[in-house]
Amino acid sequence: MINVLFAATPARWDSYEAPLRAALNDAGIDAHLAQDIPPADVDYIVYAPNSPLQDFTPYTRAKAVLNLWAGVEKIVGNKTLQIPLARMVDPGLTQGMVEWVTGHTLRHHLGMDSHVVNPGHQWTPKAPPLASERSVVIFGLGALGQACARALVGLGFRVSGWSRSAKTLEGVDCLHGDAGLRDALARAEIAIALLPDTPATENTFDAGAFAQMPRGAFLINPGRGPLIDDDALIAALDSGQIAHATLDVFRVEPLPRDHPFWAHQRVTITPHIAADTRASTAARVIVENIRRGEAGAPFINLVDRDLGY
Amino acid sequence: MINVLFAATPARWDSYEAPLRAALNDAGIDAHLAQDIPPADVDYIVYAPNSPLQDFTPYTRAKAVLNLWAGVEKIVGNKTLQIPLARMVDPGLTQGMVEWVTGHTLRHHLGMDSHVVNPGHQWTPKAPPLASERSVVIFGLGALGQACARALVGLGFRVSGWSRSAKTLEGVDCLHGDAGLRDALARAEIAIALLPDTPATENTFDAGAFAQMPRGAFLINPGRGPLIDDDALIAALDSGQIAHATLDVFRVEPLPRDHPFWAHQRVTITPHIAADTRASTAARVIVENIRRGEAGAPFINLVDRDLGY
Repeated sequence: MINVLFAATPARWDSYEAPLRAALNDAGIDAHLAQDIPPADVDYIVYAPNSPLQDFTPYTRAKAVLNLWAGVEKIVGNKTLQIPLARMVDPGLTQGMVEWVTGHTLRHHLGMDSHVVNPGHQWTPKAPPLASERSVVIFGLGALGQACARALVGLGFRVSGWSRSAKTLEGVDCLHGDAGLRDALARAEIAIALLPDTPATENTFDAGAFAQMPRGAFLINPGRGPLIDDDALIAALDSGQIAHATLDVFRVEPLPRDHPFWAHQRVTITPHIAADTRASTAARVIVENIRRGEAGAPFINLVDRDLGY
Repeated sequence: MINVLFAATPARWDSYEAPLRAALNDAGIDAHLAQDIPPADVDYIVYAPNSPLQDFTPYTRAKAVLNLWAGVEKIVGNKTLQIPLARMVDPGLTQGMVEWVTGHTLRHHLGMDSHVVNPGHQWTPKAPPLASERSVVIFGLGALGQACARALVGLGFRVSGWSRSAKTLEGVDCLHGDAGLRDALARAEIAIALLPDTPATENTFDAGAFAQMPRGAFLINPGRGPLIDDDALIAALDSGQIAHATLDVFRVEPLPRDHPFWAHQRVTITPHIAADTRASTAARVIVENIRRGEAGAPFINLVDRDLGY
């Protein structure tokens, strides 16, 4: 019997208790999992950096701190933390992003909204083009962009990708750098924004970019809010240059109630759900590290304290 | 130079002229394509069975009649037609069905409608389950059902299939017969109806079937209208047993304006567009047969006059 302390908010406990118990059971690990265990008895700490637990000194027996999410910037500098710290690398997060991106790409590709909202009860049989006739461009070819590209290639779309530096990806026409950006925008009937948030990527989608895209293009942003110049997007939607924008991330979240995106007929807002850590898959990653700890095997997803991630 | 007569409605000409010219050009075939060519000069007839051309006797030089769609029941018994008749087998039709089914499955899986129509501007971050946690059942495992199953397996869904007789399909839990139907209904969080229209399949989805499905299931019908008992579906939607139905086919089409499906909040209607012949791909199939005719190679998709298809 080992003791696993869950050190995060009660809301997280509600989400994670059952998946963690199921994953421990599936792994054949006999564990006492609870939110309150005497520090000296704790073997593993499942941890959220906003937990009240900030002094790790009394946890003399603990073998590892297993973070519930990817970001460890709030905890990595904690001097009382001298045992291994693992960050979350959740396969469910990537899969959820692929599903969200694929779904909304197909939604715009098929013109679904005109059927979901059809107050005039119009019956107008007109088949959409095939995916093989639709050019989709993914801006950003990190792990998430690559996973989305693979899924869209699998469905038959003509997929291009753009990244700052050159990359290659099977079935994807990869462009890069400033010259490549012009090409990428020009062919983006559906543009998917998955760039990181850096000073260089801020306002990648501004008035000049929208003007280079094909008229009537769709913009999908599950990446980062600052990639888009909000005012320029509103203007491009009003002129019809951009047909519709589906946005999951914003400069301020929740999106303020007076932001013009809310009332715009050509904007669909989803509340930052495209890439969420999923308790079911994250619990299995945490339990895999407990299994490794008990077997004397190296932990996965260990944080490098010098690099900070 | 060969002469290719286009014998179908002017509306079809508008759709097919450019794709046919492009496909002929791509194949390097020097052809005169027109709607009006002296019968004795015609080499190939691109044909729709509802064309005024019903007497093939004057077309003494023609090598083949190339049908624009799959159904040939109106022409196969024509005694004046003594040259080879090819039906349309359009890869674009299957691909279009896969895209429509995949798109609407993801739409219901992700709960997209609550974001597309969100008059209260609600910001409620709650990620949907992953596809790997969603059980989808395809009723009917013909060519279209199999193609859809492959795409949904590729996206990570838990896919089952049901057919009258036993089938096997990689990655799909295949059920069959009456006992299998009960299992299939019981696990159908999303049910996709792709059965043929026969006396045995009529009302497969009736009150008894809906009662066996998980509460809050989704029904997607791109197959045939008579597969569904319309009144039973309305009752199941009203009770919440079925959360939403997305329907592409109906017992009467266009769907009559007074049919209760039109006004129902939990029904989405698409106007028989899931499986349409696509001019771009169909034109290539027709030109491939012209190429074969000129090369003395056997035609593809030939109709067996005795079987009638």
